[in-house]
This record gives sequence, structure tokens and C-alpha cells, in this order.
Amino acid sequence: MRTFAVVGHLAPTGNGFPLDDLPGSAGRMDILCRCVNAALSISHGIRRDAEIHLILLGPPSPPKDLLLQGSVVRSLSPDERSTAALIRKALALPTGESFRESSPGILVRRGGLAGLIADGGYAVLSEDGRDMRTFPDLPGAFLLSDHLDFTAEEEEILPGLPRISVGPRVLHADHAITVLQNELDRREAGWS
Amino acid sequence: MRTFAVVGHLAPTGNGFPLDDLPGSAGRMDILCRCVNAALSISHGIRRDAEIHLILLGPPSPPKDLLLQGSVVRSLSPDERSTAALIRKALALPTGESFRESSPGILVRRGGLAGLIADGGYAVLSEDGRDMRTFPDLPGAFLLSDHLDFTAEEEEILPGLPRISVGPRVLHADHAITVLQNELDRREAGWS
Repeated sequence: MRTFAVVGHLAPTGNGFPLDDLPGSAGRMDILCRCVNAALSISHGIRRDAEIHLILLGPPSPPKDLLLQGSVVRSLSPDERSTAALIRKALALPTGESFRESSPGILVRRGGLAGLIADGGYAVLSEDGRDMRTFPDLPGAFLLSDHLDFTAEEEEILPGLPRISVGPRVLHADHAITVLQNELDRREAGWS
Repeated sequence: MRTFAVVGHLAPTGNGFPLDDLPGSAGRMDILCRCVNAALSISHGIRRDAEIHLILLGPPSPPKDLLLQGSVVRSLSPDERSTAALIRKALALPTGESFRESSPGILVRRGGLAGLIADGGYAVLSEDGRDMRTFPDLPGAFLLSDHLDFTAEEEEILPGLPRISVGPRVLHADHAITVLQNELDRREAGWS
């Protein structure tokens, strides 16, 4: 299983955001939608061995942990708008400590970064990390931030986690996921 | 300079398409917008050393060649909707044999794949190609198709071009561009 988690610092935790303004009043929901695409979508199909958590920290009721499971999800298209519509539907659900399913493979719970990291196994994708290609074995879970850096408070719960870089240029979060998926695909298939 | 070209087999050549239905009635314009993002966009900036041609083959007046130049373009955001709005604005221009500028770094002309390929230097990104990592030197221009394969007629003008694969899984066109950009970034920076 490949697990990704992306922190959306401004991303809404309610279902009132507009699909026509994902980068603006929807708190850069466009980035998170592209991350879902990069984590779960391949040509003419879904990566059944992958899942992605979106940690939403914007108003009105943060934090929320929205999980999309490639093994189960249906009707997931690669475009931003339809993905945002699925997320919005999930955010209409009342949340508790446990995951509740909105549609197949799309679940939501109350919870933030600390609880997720406690599950263990995460590496942080970061431009100051060690080149992914130099790891003999890569971990199975990867944490990223959206367009903003991790806050000082968030960094405090990350020490000890391996830090991995995907390349010499600082990329958008979704591009970093895509590059990493390619590296994992290659290792799995025995490509160099 | 890194040049990308993507054939949009159903993509509109007029400005009448809706921004709210990019994957449907806008002929998979969502894919082309994500390709623009993958070719030109990095975190907090634009790749000034890259450009992308969109070869649009849908109604009402195909073919058109829409060029976005990273060196010049302004106001390019990474989300699909705003990119589609820029493309739509360019498609309102009357077209001739020469490029005409719609906004800085966004140009359009009448023309299709054959004319573009004649410029020379292109490799085809294809799942049956040779692994990109095994090329001692990579070319500077790359041709991709959207969600559809190249037609038999298109394939007839491609023989002799190198065919390059980015990995063992068949990826969306925009993901293939992202992976290739990373490989080019690494080579440029002296990373392995």
C-alpha cells in the first residue's frame, strides 16, 4: 500500500465552498484535488494500491481528515472540479473520531496531523530531504504540505521522520507525488 | 529550451466551450490544462525555459496550434479553470499561418501536427518507448497524445522519431510530462 497525506492549511472543512473558485475562496482546494489525481489516477484507471489523506485545516471546523482509498473508490475522474465535488459531498457529513463513509472509498473524520503521524511509517517530502533515488528502500507513507510550508508547530511533531527530496527543483505537491509514484512504479517493476 | 506538444483530439478550436465542463463538452480540455501546468509550473513560479504547444483538433475549425511560452507568459495559475480561460481567450482570435498573440506568451495559429513535427527534434512519449533513464542525452522536444492514442494517420508522420517511455505504468499525459521534467531537472543539476 502507498499512502500519501497532504496538509491543506487553508482548505475548507465545510461544504460551502464554490466549485468555480477552487484556488481562491475554496482555500487552494485545486492543489488538493490535483494531489488526489496524482496519488490515485493512472491512464484509464485507478491505482488500487494507493490512498491519500487530505488534512484540512481551514474554516469552519478544523481539523478534518478526509481519506480517499484507491482500492474502493468509484466515479473518480482526474479533473479538479469533479474531485472537489466529491470532497464537498464528504464534508457535508457530521464528523466524529472514527471515519464515516460519504461515497465508496471516500471517508471523513475529525482529526489532524498529529493523529495521522502517530499511525507511523511516514516520511516527509521536502526540498531539504535526501534524494529519493539514494534510498535502498523507500517507506510506504509520505507526508506533504500544500503551497505553504509546514508551520513551526507542525514541524515540532515531525522530528525523527525521514525527509525525502524528489529532485533539485521545488515542485508543487501534486508534481512531487507524481514523481514519487514513478520511482515506486519503477522499483516495483524492476526498472532501474 | 524544453518543448512539449500535446495533441488534443477532441479539444475545441473555438471559444464557445464551458469552463464548468472541461472533461465533457470541452473535449477533455482538463487534460490539456494539466499538461500546461506540468510543462510550465513549478512551486511559486514558472519554468522560463519551457514551452508547450497544444494541437487542437476538435470543432469548429481544426487544426489549431496554441503555444504557451514560459519565458514570456504572465498570470498563469496552476489550476485547470483559469488556464482554460486563457486558452478560451486565445481561441477567440482569428487565425492564420503565423502565430498571433492573445496575451503575453500565449499565441495561436492555424496548423496541426505535421507542421509542428517538421520543425524537427521531437521525440514521442509512448509506453512502448525506451526508458528515458537509459538515454545518455535526451532530446529537447517531446510529443504526447491526450487520453486517446495517436491515430493511424498521425502515426504515419511519426516514424523515425525516437520513442521514449517514462516508466512501467501507463500514465496520464500530464503525469508523463511531470516525470520527464524531473529527469531533465536532475540531469541539468548534476543529480543522478
